[in-house]
Amino acid sequence: MSRPTPLSGFPEWLPPQRMIEQYVLDRIRATFELHGFAPLETRAVEPLDQLLRKGETSKEVYVLRRLQEDSADASDDALGLHFDLTVPFARFVLENAGKLQFPFRRYQIQKVWRGERPQEGRYREFAQADIDIVDRDTLGPHYEAELPLVVADALGGLPIPPIRIQVNNRKVCEGFYRGVGVTDAEAALRAVDKLDKIGPAKVAELLVSTAGTTEAQARACLALAGISASDASFADAVLALGVTDPLLDEGLAELVRVVQAGAEHAPGLLVADLKIARGLDYYTGTVYETQLRGYERFGSICSGGRYDNLAASGDERYPGVGISIGVTRLLGLLFGAGALGVSRSVPSCVLVALPDEDSRARCDRIAAALRRRGIATEVSPSAAKYGKQIRYAERRGIPYVWFPGAGPDSGGGAGGSGGAPAGGGAPAGGDQVKDIRSGAQCPADAANWQPPAEDLHPRILGVSPG
Amino acid sequence: MSRPTPLSGFPEWLPPQRMIEQYVLDRIRATFELHGFAPLETRAVEPLDQLLRKGETSKEVYVLRRLQEDSADASDDALGLHFDLTVPFARFVLENAGKLQFPFRRYQIQKVWRGERPQEGRYREFAQADIDIVDRDTLGPHYEAELPLVVADALGGLPIPPIRIQVNNRKVCEGFYRGVGVTDAEAALRAVDKLDKIGPAKVAELLVSTAGTTEAQARACLALAGISASDASFADAVLALGVTDPLLDEGLAELVRVVQAGAEHAPGLLVADLKIARGLDYYTGTVYETQLRGYERFGSICSGGRYDNLAASGDERYPGVGISIGVTRLLGLLFGAGALGVSRSVPSCVLVALPDEDSRARCDRIAAALRRRGIATEVSPSAAKYGKQIRYAERRGIPYVWFPGAGPDSGGGAGGSGGAPAGGGAPAGGDQVKDIRSGAQCPADAANWQPPAEDLHPRILGVSPG
Repeated sequence: MSRPTPLSGFPEWLPPQRMIEQYVLDRIRATFELHGFAPLETRAVEPLDQLLRKGETSKEVYVLRRLQEDSADASDDALGLHFDLTVPFARFVLENAGKLQFPFRRYQIQKVWRGERPQEGRYREFAQADIDIVDRDTLGPHYEAELPLVVADALGGLPIPPIRIQVNNRKVCEGFYRGVGVTDAEAALRAVDKLDKIGPAKVAELLVSTAGTTEAQARACLALAGISASDASFADAVLALGVTDPLLDEGLAELVRVVQAGAEHAPGLLVADLKIARGLDYYTGTVYETQLRGYERFGSICSGGRYDNLAASGDERYPGVGISIGVTRLLGLLFGAGALGVSRSVPSCVLVALPDEDSRARCDRIAAALRRRGIATEVSPSAAKYGKQIRYAERRGIPYVWFPGAGPDSGGGAGGSGGAPAGGGAPAGGDQVKDIRSGAQCPADAANWQPPAEDLHPRILGVSPG
Repeated sequence: MSRPTPLSGFPEWLPPQRMIEQYVLDRIRATFELHGFAPLETRAVEPLDQLLRKGETSKEVYVLRRLQEDSADASDDALGLHFDLTVPFARFVLENAGKLQFPFRRYQIQKVWRGERPQEGRYREFAQADIDIVDRDTLGPHYEAELPLVVADALGGLPIPPIRIQVNNRKVCEGFYRGVGVTDAEAALRAVDKLDKIGPAKVAELLVSTAGTTEAQARACLALAGISASDASFADAVLALGVTDPLLDEGLAELVRVVQAGAEHAPGLLVADLKIARGLDYYTGTVYETQLRGYERFGSICSGGRYDNLAASGDERYPGVGISIGVTRLLGLLFGAGALGVSRSVPSCVLVALPDEDSRARCDRIAAALRRRGIATEVSPSAAKYGKQIRYAERRGIPYVWFPGAGPDSGGGAGGSGGAPAGGGAPAGGDQVKDIRSGAQCPADAANWQPPAEDLHPRILGVSPG
């Protein structure tokens, strides 16, 4: 076969980047669990009609067929790959409601797929890390304040730039639009959602052409979208626009609560930003977007909101609120900027050098003794000269090379003659371990030697740009 | 919408089972890293021609198309979901050879998809945990002995039945077949691979009808397939059949090495079983299958082998050896037998009771203090009577309920009047924590209280059947 080439939109990381990704995912998951979210993983596929039920998503779905399938089979029960984790979660809740405890707090970290044209920072396959809380019939409003703080905890411990979470509430927008006489609130939201991309003049045109507003109404919508504050003062600014509506009042009260809880947790973390709309139309209350500071131009890395009608069947109704960290998107930005590094490219802390092939069983026993105490260890691939074995470790960033002494079942270390241990040959007596960064070498016993804590695992490092 | 129903072949676990799965995956991953395998994750899709390159797999592939795609687009560059992790890994190695260090040790834990008709223990979507080692040009034979021992370490620490790894070597079979004059070794291997399913009489018929053997040759093939031993004595049994061939000798020497390394590591773990063939035809040397003791009738839960020609392009050649744990298959068997349990259905160790809604901020601070020390904590969803809040914890298996005392910003715990703390009301002084299993309650400070180590995380338990 010819050498394969990458597929646009399907990112693959090399092992050092994958180590960073795993560290980030582990950290996010640990934080979600500290907050009491239970793990869930749903299948990758959903019935197509389920995927197309809500929102502007039909263009993004990958549909599956079995290679050997008759084309006639492919009709009713077609399956598609999920494009987010919220729609599958809502389906899972309905399907398993009788087996779950409500309110149900779950996290879900999985790949999702969207068949869109790839562009910078957009992927066809990417990982999301979601938390959601759903309850039966009604859902306490305090959860809308809780979720962004969990995300702040999860991302706050990582070596990445700080985040700012922008919050809005659909009720504020819809109530305000109704108050000024805009009838097609959904179209208006879609237009306002494009504000950062196309600017206010074009949004005003869209409001008139797609949402049927007057120019005065469009100006009022833009005035609302221009309001932003990191404290409850945004509510006064809205009221100053002179529009009244019961839904607007309800939305403002909910949004004030979220912003105040955020301000208590970490000043400057949360900002009420009334232009935030979110494209998918299943949200019914609070909505979130998240900027990575210094990377604002790349858009949101973490989004979500409250949905009251996504998981509903007959009389059953499970309102929920959720937020989703775009892990691949976040890492893609930081990898692109060279802003994250790792101290070595393999998990191994120790390479056990191999004096000769006959000593392999003895070297395996040394490695096993180190592993039993949690020290990641590999044995040298071959009994090359020690200098070459040390270079094997160096190229991978493995900090320690272990030289077996002349043990009872060793031939005496013939391979050591060209090598680098202190003294110029294989250690005559017991085992020795060498820190190949400093060159320091000392006697060691695999039953109790311990590397410094900072060397035990690969270290993930934030790298200052430039 | 109507209540959704499960999709056959696409298993989904409830959160307690998912907690067990994560524990198993974490344990496997930690062991792989202790052995120096670096993490890798490849995209879910491969070009269809890549997927169809080897083996009898065409019937199993799911092909993708974008919903909005013109049918004309769907031709050349069709994508399919990967059906294993070996083919994508081989492609990744070729694509990134210039950026990798060889020998390259990697692990990969991902979902794979096969569009086959579901049957018991077969899935259309399932998780695999793979390790592979590839090198440039040549690959040391000791790796074939190493991999099954890594798997034994990974599975040995889990609360599951012990495993037995069956090993064979394609060279033994092919050399032997050649030695007795069988010309179509591949067809013969496929026939022998069905031995456990259809029995020796039917395999003999297949050998004659599909591999073109004489009846005497078929008997010889079956005699070889009947040989099994947990030490090097199997080689004598083969030689006693009186067939000679250089490839047979080479294969026997390799297989003896693998079996002897296994016997040194753990007696009885490895057995040479000369009927093991593996369906996929990219294997060229050692092959592995694995039985879970007590579940032998369900087939192999961990398979693999050596492949010399899978990753090759022009002059470049990257021989490899790999082994794959069928995690979903393993867990499906054990869940089906009720053989695994978990001590609670959520990560939370503590529920902070809520005296009244005005105390939520104070309760959030208590929870944050506990989380900072690694104690998974959630705050009660509502200020219901304490008895109801305790039942919330009980239903989820949360072992501790925390009762905030009458703090400076508390209203005094109105919700406590119906509650269960010792003394019959809300604690008048400082905070108290109650072990709701024993009823024991004592004063506690969120800044330093620590649960017993065995309560900190959910415990995964092996359950004896019956």
